[in-house]
Amino acid sequence: MDVRKIVLVVCDGMGDRPVEDFGGKTPLEHANTPNMDLLAREGSTGVVDIIAPGVTPGSDTAHLSLLGYDAREIYTGRGPFEAAGAGLEVRPGDVAFRCNFATLEDGVIIDRRAGRIREGTEELAGVLDGMEIEDVKVLFKAGVEHRAALVLRGEGLSQDITDADPHETGRPVLEVKPLKPGDTKAEKTARILNTFIERSHEMLDNHDVNVARREKGLPPANIILPRGPGMVPHIPRLEDRTGLRAAGVVGVTLIRGICWLTGMTLIEDRRFTGGRDTDMMAKARATVEALETHDFVLVNIKAPDLAGHDGQPREKAEIIERIDEAVGYIYRHMPEDTILAVTADHSTPCGFMEHAGDPVPLVIYGRGHRRDRSQAFGETECSSGGLGRIRGKDLFHILYNMAGRAEKFGA
Amino acid sequence: MDVRKIVLVVCDGMGDRPVEDFGGKTPLEHANTPNMDLLAREGSTGVVDIIAPGVTPGSDTAHLSLLGYDAREIYTGRGPFEAAGAGLEVRPGDVAFRCNFATLEDGVIIDRRAGRIREGTEELAGVLDGMEIEDVKVLFKAGVEHRAALVLRGEGLSQDITDADPHETGRPVLEVKPLKPGDTKAEKTARILNTFIERSHEMLDNHDVNVARREKGLPPANIILPRGPGMVPHIPRLEDRTGLRAAGVVGVTLIRGICWLTGMTLIEDRRFTGGRDTDMMAKARATVEALETHDFVLVNIKAPDLAGHDGQPREKAEIIERIDEAVGYIYRHMPEDTILAVTADHSTPCGFMEHAGDPVPLVIYGRGHRRDRSQAFGETECSSGGLGRIRGKDLFHILYNMAGRAEKFGA
Repeated sequence: MDVRKIVLVVCDGMGDRPVEDFGGKTPLEHANTPNMDLLAREGSTGVVDIIAPGVTPGSDTAHLSLLGYDAREIYTGRGPFEAAGAGLEVRPGDVAFRCNFATLEDGVIIDRRAGRIREGTEELAGVLDGMEIEDVKVLFKAGVEHRAALVLRGEGLSQDITDADPHETGRPVLEVKPLKPGDTKAEKTARILNTFIERSHEMLDNHDVNVARREKGLPPANIILPRGPGMVPHIPRLEDRTGLRAAGVVGVTLIRGICWLTGMTLIEDRRFTGGRDTDMMAKARATVEALETHDFVLVNIKAPDLAGHDGQPREKAEIIERIDEAVGYIYRHMPEDTILAVTADHSTPCGFMEHAGDPVPLVIYGRGHRRDRSQAFGETECSSGGLGRIRGKDLFHILYNMAGRAEKFGA
Repeated sequence: MDVRKIVLVVCDGMGDRPVEDFGGKTPLEHANTPNMDLLAREGSTGVVDIIAPGVTPGSDTAHLSLLGYDAREIYTGRGPFEAAGAGLEVRPGDVAFRCNFATLEDGVIIDRRAGRIREGTEELAGVLDGMEIEDVKVLFKAGVEHRAALVLRGEGLSQDITDADPHETGRPVLEVKPLKPGDTKAEKTARILNTFIERSHEMLDNHDVNVARREKGLPPANIILPRGPGMVPHIPRLEDRTGLRAAGVVGVTLIRGICWLTGMTLIEDRRFTGGRDTDMMAKARATVEALETHDFVLVNIKAPDLAGHDGQPREKAEIIERIDEAVGYIYRHMPEDTILAVTADHSTPCGFMEHAGDPVPLVIYGRGHRRDRSQAFGETECSSGGLGRIRGKDLFHILYNMAGRAEKFGA
């Protein structure tokens, strides 16, 4: 049997809507994308409802779906993926949170991001990491700028608690409470979290890093505000589920967390920044290399989403043109039987500046596989493509079938 | 209300991929099919994911889906359908197996098919049929060549047992065991099956048929190797579920079993061989006749699947041309209001030589019903057809609706 490898390129937030300045074309349609257009001519296109029609996906639920998982079943919140992506070795049963370093003065939060602190957070995090409260162990790690991740590990914890973050300045930190009174697990988790926040202030307020910041007139990073709690779900490894040796070529923390929690090999490089300045050709080369030892490679490129959130269609089109070059490199250098798919995890229309539930364009190329009549890669062309309109979690099965790996159901 | 009849022609394994020798056309696209092209122009086309996108169907699960059943709910394995198709009157609660007549010598299997024995298997089967082991009754029937079907009938049986068939020569028959130790039903079934296999050897080894085979230098058919156990599921009759008097015009054993277990009328004829030599025009005439007394006629033609498994695109195209003539006959002779649909149960691409999960082409014609822009019947044309991309078990409901028989949900 003819067993092949698979590359899935996810252009974060690439889906868009018509832009007036582009004569009604989308950024993808306006961009000059000779390589993705070639894939459309030699392969088939379609559109994907990542979760379901009209449902707006997050990047985390979207990637789970694209990997063939049922996000509605396993997703408990962003915390576990952020924590895993930040490098905390989360385990099923842990409760994980996203956190900010913030500034507390006279009992109120005066800066939710501690002046977007850039240096010293690792030292501050080191003070908190390993703390024990009752029988619960605290894992804490700094992320980019003011961001951090927190994990509580112990028996009888719950994610069903209220938020500590007041989400605006000039207000005190909120007391964490169970969502339902009488829920003993939530009561315990709330009590521990309140203690953690209180101690974080005690331990950080006069830390050298903050003494120095005050001297420079910068707001001290003297309290931790956790949010977005989620119990770490049990997620079967992608390889155990499918037999595919899988690798992720990713930069952004959240998607790193997805790859880590699905048991994929993480391929990292300081040039994969997760920002606009990411080195796309380096990602393309890493993808082709990864194919030597892996059966499935996921590539995530975050930059189009950033331009979408900022409402910058011209920048988005330029980013897409750079992605097109990287896709061309992969197409020309991958083993010739590889199945190559390009899609997005969600739409981030520049005119909307947020994730939207519009379906995303998809192109799949595989030598010897069916072609349709598509002539280019874009939202309009894909909407009448031969793959039709599919769901995110079906895409993985379609690629798996094209790779000659699907088992027969029945005889 | 305008209530109509339905004909569903299932061209087994017809879906395919581009063939280089055909300039990138599939066998269906390459074949000259004026009648199916006419249906496409006068009706609508689409593609069908028989089970779900990217999932590879067996012929059995596929036909259940095409008849509107949820295969994932009722399918327990191939055994029950093979046994029913072979003419054993299976009942819910029985455990059914596919079997081979094989050759045992000096304690090892030296031929898993007893030299593809063609004659004498009915006499050999007669010796085993009706045997009783503990409180369990054995039903046994010979099929084509070395094939046979076995049914165990009694209280407290299970399908959760290991295989006896070593699946290669030079090895002894495997002892059947329960999949989980301590499962008393599986223990009982395993014990009875081991006894059956042992007795089959004792009773067949010196049977006249085998004495004669040994004299001719042929391997004796002196042991039975059962495999593929399945508890016979409870399947509601198609007529009870839908009110349709249903008939099946089929040749191949497995699909006969599907028709039998769904309570359809079986229309049989020695010219329906289930092979390449099947008389397609005889099937077409039988279909038109069946419409006089039935509301729904399923026609299965196995031949395209055989050509696909053998990797023979030219032969497959020729077979499809013969099917096209039969479809033309049905179209011209059926009552003019009949709904006529042509599709496949799965793809068997000649370049892959196995079932694949690629969606299958579909055309539906019904006088006065919607048309799309399709001009011909083929995978590419269907992928942009007006019926879109649908699931196998939805097709039955679509036909049922077109026949004016669907009940309203709501008011």
